[in-house]
Amino acid sequence: MEHRGIYDYLTRKELQGIQEFSEGKQTPFLIVSLEKIAQNYDDLKKNLPYAKIYYAVKANPDVKILKLLAEKGSCFDTATIYELDQLLEIGVTPDRISFGNTIKKEEDIAYAYEKGIRIFASDSIVDLLKISRAAPGSKVFFRLLSSGGDADWPLSKKFGVYPDTAYKLAKKAKKLELIPYGISFHVGSQQREIGEWDNAIAKCKYLFDALKKDGIELKMINMGGGFPANYVQPTQSLEVYADEITRFLDEDFPEGLPEIIIEPGRSIVADSGVMVSEVVMVTKKAQLDNYRWVFLDVGKFNGLIETMDESIKFPIFTEKHMNSKKVSDVIIAGPTCDSADIMYEHFKYTLSDKLKEKDRVFILTTGAYTYSYCSVCFNGFPPLKVYIEDKF
Amino acid sequence: MEHRGIYDYLTRKELQGIQEFSEGKQTPFLIVSLEKIAQNYDDLKKNLPYAKIYYAVKANPDVKILKLLAEKGSCFDTATIYELDQLLEIGVTPDRISFGNTIKKEEDIAYAYEKGIRIFASDSIVDLLKISRAAPGSKVFFRLLSSGGDADWPLSKKFGVYPDTAYKLAKKAKKLELIPYGISFHVGSQQREIGEWDNAIAKCKYLFDALKKDGIELKMINMGGGFPANYVQPTQSLEVYADEITRFLDEDFPEGLPEIIIEPGRSIVADSGVMVSEVVMVTKKAQLDNYRWVFLDVGKFNGLIETMDESIKFPIFTEKHMNSKKVSDVIIAGPTCDSADIMYEHFKYTLSDKLKEKDRVFILTTGAYTYSYCSVCFNGFPPLKVYIEDKF
Repeated sequence: MEHRGIYDYLTRKELQGIQEFSEGKQTPFLIVSLEKIAQNYDDLKKNLPYAKIYYAVKANPDVKILKLLAEKGSCFDTATIYELDQLLEIGVTPDRISFGNTIKKEEDIAYAYEKGIRIFASDSIVDLLKISRAAPGSKVFFRLLSSGGDADWPLSKKFGVYPDTAYKLAKKAKKLELIPYGISFHVGSQQREIGEWDNAIAKCKYLFDALKKDGIELKMINMGGGFPANYVQPTQSLEVYADEITRFLDEDFPEGLPEIIIEPGRSIVADSGVMVSEVVMVTKKAQLDNYRWVFLDVGKFNGLIETMDESIKFPIFTEKHMNSKKVSDVIIAGPTCDSADIMYEHFKYTLSDKLKEKDRVFILTTGAYTYSYCSVCFNGFPPLKVYIEDKF
Repeated sequence: MEHRGIYDYLTRKELQGIQEFSEGKQTPFLIVSLEKIAQNYDDLKKNLPYAKIYYAVKANPDVKILKLLAEKGSCFDTATIYELDQLLEIGVTPDRISFGNTIKKEEDIAYAYEKGIRIFASDSIVDLLKISRAAPGSKVFFRLLSSGGDADWPLSKKFGVYPDTAYKLAKKAKKLELIPYGISFHVGSQQREIGEWDNAIAKCKYLFDALKKDGIELKMINMGGGFPANYVQPTQSLEVYADEITRFLDEDFPEGLPEIIIEPGRSIVADSGVMVSEVVMVTKKAQLDNYRWVFLDVGKFNGLIETMDESIKFPIFTEKHMNSKKVSDVIIAGPTCDSADIMYEHFKYTLSDKLKEKDRVFILTTGAYTYSYCSVCFNGFPPLKVYIEDKF
């Protein structure tokens, strides 16, 4: 498949900046632009002015990024006590931090409570009991199951419950002297179908109403993440998403919106990152093979795990041959001795016929869910080097 | 699925040793028995006495394991210069090391050559040219494509070439003043179909004969790995594999065997490892759900990446409820906020109905391809802790 040009993703100046920065540096590495992150944060704020942003730390936990977002006033959603510690260390106060993982050890809940965390996600009775024991009196929000349909990185049934169970959990929370505070959902990362938000918001409305009759007044909707980043397949703009989502909310809550929380990760950091890789080899398996194999020095196990099942399709450009007329389809694989280390075999990228070893390749939109996933030492390869810069 | 009992994998004494060792230790962690590794090495030596063992470092690169195998006289196959450095550091001489990755940067070949490496795998003209420039006069062996059928962790077309290309490469190697030394194949990791070796050996024989007519005398067959480890699905014993493979070799080379190399990884270290995990939570998504979800504190991104596509099915046992009569099917998932972090959803494990949070779970046969694959910090989780002990 031929995809959009590099200037649909980067300005000429940004590309030039990346090229200059890369010069003489050993590949592979990831360069991250703080300027882009600030801009994405501001865009979200501008488009969803009523929403409180809880940055999903797991998307990219680099301390410089956390500091930048903390300075800009962001709140933070954490998956583990390790992420929590990192935030506390840089001076983020616990009132700006939620514990969003529904799978928690009781001792971790106790640890978070001791550190001042007072808001927790939950989706089961056993977890709720743990919270009531280890974090008495805390706010709890209940996560709904989502279909995840049309999300590039789809959700499974791992998280969330059906509305009837959420209803029961809210009532149980009250009995346990917790504060049943709100409902959360996550439509799936890189969700293309805006209607999924409509579905989810309608379920929230239903639960708000049903619980009100039982004397429980929910205060908050946590819409999770799922806002799009700029990968190969085009999505609607953030403006379109925001307009639609706002309309859904206004329709369901005409008397005024509850507190709205969002937990963006990918949409804030993904397009702030460019991976710079080098071609190790270009070969064919036989003279008449239909496809060339392009082996890069970065692969599934040192930064590109989201190519698992070819889910996320990163924009890939070669440095030298951007305007090449002679192009053909390739299979793209990583440098390890593992046969599973193939990034794209079924989805075909089209690259210049001139591409050869030592040519540099830019893998765009790699600021989220890349380096934190790197293997510690698979095949001996060290984890990806990361440079966090002010701008490209 | 109900699988075999724990004593089909461990002796009572070993299990007791693991339990004692685990006491009071925080999960998750991996415990590795050097005794088992030594025994597996000896078993291979005994069953394939004519084969030279090149341990595939990537399977488990822990330095204590490398030292043990070095003392026992093993040679080593490396995927990268990082693995090479590790071996040289502990005093392994370069004549006992091969560079088995066919995807290599020229500067890495040069580095290996400078360190004394004189045998390289190859499967393409471009790589061969690099070897001729950076490692002149070295021995080269050519990797054949394998179908990989019936392997649990199947091979793709990422590595290897068809025999006609291998033939051309051998002739080209001679022209480049390299030593066309042998043919290698890899039937696929955890290969269940012994006949795959027959196929591959027959192709080697064909190439030996064809090249002899051109004045090229190959000296070696590298049979790679693929010998079975003890996972959920039963395989034939090593004895049966060895007998059959030896018969195939004897039939194709009646006038005497060439040098035979094997590159075992999994079969040496897999069953030397037991992962000790704790149940974080057991839940159902709804009252009438068919399956319980069992969430462990170890998952796809901190040790169990080979559960990708549910490929490798690790034997899983609970500590407390081994003899439980009331059992039912479960879905097993990891602790991160990633929906892809589900180990087994389609293949059903059967665990005790009594299983609950804080119960310990033993994941067996986890000595290979586990901790080196761990993510550096996904969701903030640190990589799996590893204890290398003399024995269980």
